[in-house]
Amino acid sequence: MIKTDILIIGAGPTGLFTVFEAGLLKLKCHLIDALPQPGGQCSEIYPKKPIYDIPAYPEILAGDLTEKLLEQGKQFEPGFTLGERAETIEKQDDGTFIVTTNKGTKHHAPVVAIAGGLGSFEPRKPKIHNIHLYEDKGVEYMIKDPEIYRDKKVVIAGGGDSALDWSIFLTDVAKEVTLIHRRNEFRGALDSVEKVQELKNQGKINLITPAEVVGILGEDHVTGVVVEQVQQIKKEFEIECDHFVPLFGLSPKLGPIADWGLEIEKNAIKVNNALDYQTNIPGIFAIGDVNTYPGKLKLILCGFHEATLMCQAAYQIINPGKRYVLKYTTVSGIDGFDGSRKEAPKAVVKAIE
Amino acid sequence: MIKTDILIIGAGPTGLFTVFEAGLLKLKCHLIDALPQPGGQCSEIYPKKPIYDIPAYPEILAGDLTEKLLEQGKQFEPGFTLGERAETIEKQDDGTFIVTTNKGTKHHAPVVAIAGGLGSFEPRKPKIHNIHLYEDKGVEYMIKDPEIYRDKKVVIAGGGDSALDWSIFLTDVAKEVTLIHRRNEFRGALDSVEKVQELKNQGKINLITPAEVVGILGEDHVTGVVVEQVQQIKKEFEIECDHFVPLFGLSPKLGPIADWGLEIEKNAIKVNNALDYQTNIPGIFAIGDVNTYPGKLKLILCGFHEATLMCQAAYQIINPGKRYVLKYTTVSGIDGFDGSRKEAPKAVVKAIE
Ligand SMILES: Cc1cc2nc3c(=O)[nH]c(=O)nc-3n(C[C@H](O)[C@H](O)[C@H](O)COP(=O)(O)OP(=O)(O)OC[C@H]3O[C@@H](n4cnc5c(N)ncnc54)[C@H](O)[C@@H]3O)c2cc1C
Ligand SMILES: Cc1cc2nc3c(=O)[nH]c(=O)nc-3n(C[C@H](O)[C@H](O)[C@H](O)COP(=O)(O)OP(=O)(O)OC[C@H]3O[C@@H](n4cnc5c(N)ncnc54)[C@H](O)[C@@H]3O)c2cc1C
Repeated sequence: MIKTDILIIGAGPTGLFTVFEAGLLKLKCHLIDALPQPGGQCSEIYPKKPIYDIPAYPEILAGDLTEKLLEQGKQFEPGFTLGERAETIEKQDDGTFIVTTNKGTKHHAPVVAIAGGLGSFEPRKPKIHNIHLYEDKGVEYMIKDPEIYRDKKVVIAGGGDSALDWSIFLTDVAKEVTLIHRRNEFRGALDSVEKVQELKNQGKINLITPAEVVGILGEDHVTGVVVEQVQQIKKEFEIECDHFVPLFGLSPKLGPIADWGLEIEKNAIKVNNALDYQTNIPGIFAIGDVNTYPGKLKLILCGFHEATLMCQAAYQIINPGKRYVLKYTTVSGIDGFDGSRKEAPKAVVKAIE
Repeated sequence: MIKTDILIIGAGPTGLFTVFEAGLLKLKCHLIDALPQPGGQCSEIYPKKPIYDIPAYPEILAGDLTEKLLEQGKQFEPGFTLGERAETIEKQDDGTFIVTTNKGTKHHAPVVAIAGGLGSFEPRKPKIHNIHLYEDKGVEYMIKDPEIYRDKKVVIAGGGDSALDWSIFLTDVAKEVTLIHRRNEFRGALDSVEKVQELKNQGKINLITPAEVVGILGEDHVTGVVVEQVQQIKKEFEIECDHFVPLFGLSPKLGPIADWGLEIEKNAIKVNNALDYQTNIPGIFAIGDVNTYPGKLKLILCGFHEATLMCQAAYQIINPGKRYVLKYTTVSGIDGFDGSRKEAPKAVVKAIE
């Protein structure tokens, strides 16, 4: 059982900034995310695109924003359960909560902050009748640890940035990389498309287009795929491989959270925006894109504010009756849970002679 | 008469970010500030100190934050009335407002956003009985335009960062710089104190301590000051000069805004935080440190969120009945009022052969 002060569901920008604000109040956080990496929409959908409306950043790439938020919170040593979906919540007699993931990992905390964005990112799966039999046995819908492909034969399917970028990345890791797409045209950043063209010319990526994987081979584990290619005539053939990685995009689904007894409106969780972004269940808060209230804007900067106010309420729940006095970071500095200290250089009082 | 869409009172971080968010909605802004420079508390009180809780900035100097906010809003061409205090407000029959400053400058707008922080920064003045006769005639409590001191003799009084830093700066501009302080010890950044010591040793700053200016000389304009120095014995003498600049710090006063008929609580303006941060007077909003509501935190990041939601309400007032659809800056880019355009590099759709 993982124990923490604030259990955060969703490691998007809102969840990541919560770690920092909670840390200032000496509260520890643990984050659960269905994705294998933190950053939410920013890291999954548009890591290489610029955002222009993060305050005081005239321009920042979404991936860099994620990096900065991780760096800002690092000293408060957040825990992570990645690649797992928060599935059930149980309120204990003492008012605390136990949250269990689809993989059975249990988390215990007095406060739960749902920062689930548009929902848990779930892969779009290709329509291959027996594909579910190979999940985690050679079929992966997202790449969690590239090392499992070392010296293996990998077939990637897809025509977007993920398929392009992982094909490029894996040429240095895998024994063989095959990229299959149902059109000749790919959609992605110009330099990714050009890089794949170059690697194909060098024989480092086998490109098969327009084509589709229509079957999977193997007993206990993937040993190959069946490919259907339609050029002048339709032909079907087999490719030997250890892994088949269809990267057809991930789409967010509010999912199990919708059944937790929370008031839902327009696919989002209603909260008390006049105070602390608490839901109808005391002790459960909803912040960032996942919540709704009159005038709500699904913007990153709004999640930052909501997280900050929410942490104050969490402090009251965890330290009942204790009065919290707001301190400026500039004046008081920051004491990390890792023993680090950041502080402004002190003014000196010094005679001039 | 200056005309604009949103008249912002206060050019601190909240006011500056409002310019950007309003610009996204194609609304123009004009800012009034009592200080000679934008940035509010950040530029006036702690420009060289680090802030640690600006989201995605693990550390940023308050002065750099101001620079970044100015840069982010620049393309939306804000107007500024600096060094003047907003004094009166009159609601017109058509619901618009006219705001007049202490210097008589008039501004006309359908929406007023008070982003006045802890109030208008007003100088602490030395107790010299006739000093008011010399204001703007050689006595300045803040330095608006250093060029007026070119080739002049300047006496600066004070023992903090402002006095130190302006003394250093003016050695390159003025004919003669004298720094007077009632103690031998100065309080400031170590490098400022050391730099003044060095300039004193080189004869570029005349240092007189422990001493006080007790009188001002001159008919229509300052021609000198009377100094009282107490070492072993007390002595009084005159120094010839063209300007006397007492830099004893500025302290914020809510000031005239308190008489505008707004609901005030604990020296701050009550707003509807459940919707749009509007005050009890429709069309007047209060954002940032100057407002109060249950759970209010006087933090910069909260001002950013409040400004953003407020702009949506301003849009409705200025464009009645028009529906606004939120656009992501990443997806839609930014069109500046100066003709500039920022946008994310487009994805390409390209065949790989
Ligand atoms: C193309 C694009 C451009 C954008 N441009 C801008 C912009 O310019 N400016 C701006 O402010 N915003 C922009 N946005 C929106 C911005 O990305 C979101 O507002 C922001 O990501 C919301 O952050 P969040 O942390 O609330 O949620 P998210 O980023 O959505 O993160 C939520 C996380 O929670 C996880 N999760 C949800 N449910 C569960 C569960 N049950 N178990 C485990 N994990 C779960 C998800 O997997 C996800 O990783 C853009 C969005 C897109 C798609
Ligand atoms: C030493 C110090 C350290 C701090 N550290 C932090 C920190 O680490 N993190 C954080 O988030 N915050 C910190 N703060 C607080 C932060 O500076 C404020 O929250 C922020 O400046 C508020 O911004 P604002 O734009 O709302 O108001 P302000 O910055 O106060 O700006 C308001 C402006 O309005 C002007 N004004 C007011 N009334 C009038 C009028 N009638 N006419 C003309 N002009 C007027 C004032 O002159 C002023 O320039 C700190 C503050 C101090 C003093």
